[in-house]
Amino acid sequence: MNEFMKLLSLSKPVIQAPMAGGPATPPLAAAVSNYGGLGSLASGYLTPETLKRQIEETKQLTSAQFQVNLFVPEKREKVSRKKIEDWQNKIPLSQSAELETDEEQDWNDFYEKIDIVLNSGVKVCSFTFGVPPVDAVKELKKRDCCLIGTAVSVDEAVLLEEKGMDIIVVQGSEAGGHRGAFLHTKGEAAVGLIALIPQAADHVSVPVIAAGGIYDKRGVAASFALGAQGVQLGTAFLACMESGTSAVYKQKLIEAAETDTRLTRLFSGKPARGIVNQWMEDRRIDEDNALPYPLQNTLTKPMRKQAQLEGNPESMSLWCGQGVRAATKQTTVKELMDQLVPAGVIL
Amino acid sequence: MNEFMKLLSLSKPVIQAPMAGGPATPPLAAAVSNYGGLGSLASGYLTPETLKRQIEETKQLTSAQFQVNLFVPEKREKVSRKKIEDWQNKIPLSQSAELETDEEQDWNDFYEKIDIVLNSGVKVCSFTFGVPPVDAVKELKKRDCCLIGTAVSVDEAVLLEEKGMDIIVVQGSEAGGHRGAFLHTKGEAAVGLIALIPQAADHVSVPVIAAGGIYDKRGVAASFALGAQGVQLGTAFLACMESGTSAVYKQKLIEAAETDTRLTRLFSGKPARGIVNQWMEDRRIDEDNALPYPLQNTLTKPMRKQAQLEGNPESMSLWCGQGVRAATKQTTVKELMDQLVPAGVIL
Repeated sequence: MNEFMKLLSLSKPVIQAPMAGGPATPPLAAAVSNYGGLGSLASGYLTPETLKRQIEETKQLTSAQFQVNLFVPEKREKVSRKKIEDWQNKIPLSQSAELETDEEQDWNDFYEKIDIVLNSGVKVCSFTFGVPPVDAVKELKKRDCCLIGTAVSVDEAVLLEEKGMDIIVVQGSEAGGHRGAFLHTKGEAAVGLIALIPQAADHVSVPVIAAGGIYDKRGVAASFALGAQGVQLGTAFLACMESGTSAVYKQKLIEAAETDTRLTRLFSGKPARGIVNQWMEDRRIDEDNALPYPLQNTLTKPMRKQAQLEGNPESMSLWCGQGVRAATKQTTVKELMDQLVPAGVIL
Repeated sequence: MNEFMKLLSLSKPVIQAPMAGGPATPPLAAAVSNYGGLGSLASGYLTPETLKRQIEETKQLTSAQFQVNLFVPEKREKVSRKKIEDWQNKIPLSQSAELETDEEQDWNDFYEKIDIVLNSGVKVCSFTFGVPPVDAVKELKKRDCCLIGTAVSVDEAVLLEEKGMDIIVVQGSEAGGHRGAFLHTKGEAAVGLIALIPQAADHVSVPVIAAGGIYDKRGVAASFALGAQGVQLGTAFLACMESGTSAVYKQKLIEAAETDTRLTRLFSGKPARGIVNQWMEDRRIDEDNALPYPLQNTLTKPMRKQAQLEGNPESMSLWCGQGVRAATKQTTVKELMDQLVPAGVIL
C-alpha cells in the first residue's frame, strides 16, 4: 500500500473524477468508495444547498471516505456588449439564459461550500482551475482534511505543492471534460500522460495521481510505472449504471472511437474534451473567439438543457476522454473496479 | 525477448525515430544499432543518391541492422495562385524557393529509393504518411525485408496490418516532429499514448511500438505495460552527440519545458510538434490557412536554411516531443540506451 492509499485509507488506488454537471451523483460516489476507491461529489455547478443535500445522501450510502470537489473562482474577463450580442445571435435559446452571478458571488459560494465541507465531516477536498486561497487551506487543514490539487503541467504541480496540497492529480491531454489548468490554460499546450507523469513526479514530493485516457488495468500499471501512486478515471465511470449519464450520452460513448473527440471552448469558454458533434462542427470557425468562462457556459446552458430534454446529442456537451473504448457496454462500478485492479494485485 | 526484438535481432527494444531533415545521420543510426537498438536513416527529404551514400556510410559504421524510412507520396491538393502569392508575401525569402517537384516525381523518387533498399541489403524498411503500394510491399517481402508502418489511430494500425506491415509504430500526440497520419490527419484528433497503445494493441496482431514523449526507463516500462513490444524515441536522441542537431537547436531543447511545444502546420503544411518560436507566434493567426504539404514546406525552406546558417532559432523548425526533459544535457547514445533499458532488465 503506497502513501496515497494510506493517506486516504483506500484499498484500490482509484479516484472517480469529479465530473460536474450531472454524472457525479451520490450513488456513483458512494459505489466507488464502497468498492475501495475514492468517490467524488462535484460541487462546481451546484448551489451550496444542493451540495449539502448530496453530501447527506452520499453519507447514507457509504461509511467510507469520499471527496468534494470545488472550482476555484477566477478573475472574470471583461467582454464587450457587442461580442456578447454576436454570440447571443449564434447560440440557440441563449436569449433565455439567466444572467450569471458575479465574481463576488462566486467567492461567497466558494466559502459557503468550504463551510459545508468543514461542518460535514468530509475529510477529502479537491480543487480544479486553480490554487485555493490560504485561509481556506488553513481551515481545512485544521480539521485534518486532505487536500487534492489539479495540475496540467510541472509548474502547476509545483505551485500546488507549495500552497499546501497533499496530493496532486496530473491531468493529461487525454482527459475528457474540462482541462483543470490555471497557468497553462491553452488547450494546445496539453501534455500527454506518458510524458507528464514522470516529469511531474520528479518535481514534487507529494503523491501524484494520473488522470486522462486510463480505462483498464494496463493504464493503471503504466501510471504506476511512470511514477504515479494512483489513477483518476472519468469516462470509464460515465458508462456505469450508477452514474447520472443520460441514455443518449451513454450511447454516444459506446459508439465513439479514440479519434472522435477534440478540445473545444464552444460550450463553456474553457477548453474541454468531448465527442465532436453538430454544435462543435457548426461553430468550429468561432473556436478561437468563444466568450470567456463562465459567460459562454451561461449562454449555452438553455441549449444544452433543451438537448438533454429532447435526447438530442448534437447540441449537448458529450465530455469524453481518449480512453473511450472503456465504454463498450454499460457496466457497474464493481465490475470496473475489479477490472482496474484485479484481486491479488500488489501495488 | 519478445516477438519484435526477435524479428529484428535486437538486444534493446528501442528504435531511433527516423527524423528527416538532418538529425538522423549515419553516425547516429549506426550508434543506435551498435548498442542493440534499431538505428534509422530518414530518406524523406533526401535525393536517392544521398540515401545511397548514407546507407554505405552507415554500413561502414555498423554491421548490425538499421532501417531506411520512406515518406509515402500523397495526392497533391490544388491551391490557387492567389493563395500561394499571399504566402510568398508572408514567408521571408520564399521568393527564392525552388519550385517543387510534382507528384509523378515523388513516385519516381519513391521507387528509386525502394530499389536502393532492395539492392543495399537493408532488411528493415519503414513508412510514414501512408500505406506503401502493393508492388513495393511485394518486392520488399520477396527479399525478406521487415516492414514497419506508422499509425496515429486504431483504424490506421488495422489498415497497415492488412496491407502487410510486420510491425506498427503507434505515434501518440506527445511525439515531436510530423504526425505520420494518413486517415486521421487533423492534429486536433491526436491521441495520447496511454490511451492509444492498448486500443491499438487490442486491434492488431503484429507487434506495436510506442512513439511519443518517452524519454527514460519509466516510459519504456509503461509502454510495455500498455501492450507495446518496443519504443521509438526521437527527441531523446536529438540531444545525443551523434545526432546532426545544430548547437542552437540543442540549446533550445535543453531549455524547453513540457508545455513549450505545440502542433503547427506553419512550417510544412502538415501538423508537426515543435517548440513555439517567433515564426509560429507571428503567423499563429494563419495556422488553419497554411498551404498543403509539400508547398508550405517548399516556401519556408529558404527561411529555415538561412536561420540554420545564422543560428537563429526563431525561424527554424524546432521539432520536439513532450518528453523534452530527456534533453537536460548533451549525452551519448550509449548513455541514453543504458538508461532506457538498464542491464539486467528482462523484457
